Amino acid sequence: MYNDEVLRETTEFLHREIPLTRAMGVRVAACDGARLVLEAPLALNHNHLGTAFGGSLSAVATLAGYALLWLELRDRSAHVLIQKSTIKFRRPVRGDLRAVCRTPGAAALATFRGDFARKGKARLVLRVQIEDGGKTAVDFEGTFVALK
Amino acid sequence: MYNDEVLRETTEFLHREIPLTRAMGVRVAACDGARLVLEAPLALNHNHLGTAFGGSLSAVATLAGYALLWLELRDRSAHVLIQKSTIKFRRPVRGDLRAVCRTPGAAALATFRGDFARKGKARLVLRVQIEDGGKTAVDFEGTFVALK
Repeated sequence: MYNDEVLRETTEFLHREIPLTRAMGVRVAACDGARLVLEAPLALNHNHLGTAFGGSLSAVATLAGYALLWLELRDRSAHVLIQKSTIKFRRPVRGDLRAVCRTPGAAALATFRGDFARKGKARLVLRVQIEDGGKTAVDFEGTFVALK
Repeated sequence: MYNDEVLRETTEFLHREIPLTRAMGVRVAACDGARLVLEAPLALNHNHLGTAFGGSLSAVATLAGYALLWLELRDRSAHVLIQKSTIKFRRPVRGDLRAVCRTPGAAALATFRGDFARKGKARLVLRVQIEDGGKTAVDFEGTFVALK
């Protein structure tokens, strides 16, 4: 569980380090141990059809993974990279973008933290969903790597 | 082969219809029948490590696919959607982003155009590569759908 100040500070970190996140209006909306939620307004992220742009959806899902790893590692100096990702656009997103990254299980996180501490390198697969009207609109799966 | 005016007009179409493309500084740099090239400056698209942000790389690859389909169909009223994509980040991109979408073979394009004309719906898999220093840095594969 993180308080509002940590969420605000993480949003500011994103805006400062990754300028596109400011143009997208991304903010860390919640992080409660079970999931991390990023939001971004449709007005800044729509496509030619008035729904959410696929590139914005992919970016916000990727950012949800980054943010979760930064908060889990509590180490902003860690070099967090994405190695690969797959995204499925199941239905259009017609409202503001809301990406939910579920925290992996305790065992996966313990392995990740242990590898990072011992080897200076750890890999983790993260899943992110974006909903629209209560239904899953987008499924994202990304392989992230943290390097000391 | 498209002249500079068509490339400029397609860039303006992207900036008008998908506002994030303006924030990314995306422009259609070339389209010669064999490939379509999109460029975007690193200054607007870097991450916390000073290399290209994965979300920007994914967005610029997706846009290269859209732009190729719009130019191939010569029909801006076509609803071009992306269904799914996979992206592999093989090495960091340290300079400006340059995404190259190769035009599919003549047979695949003829099927795509024929399906679109007859059924009002057509599907096409497009591959996009982003290079850095002469080596492939990013491999993207997207499944696009065009609807009348």
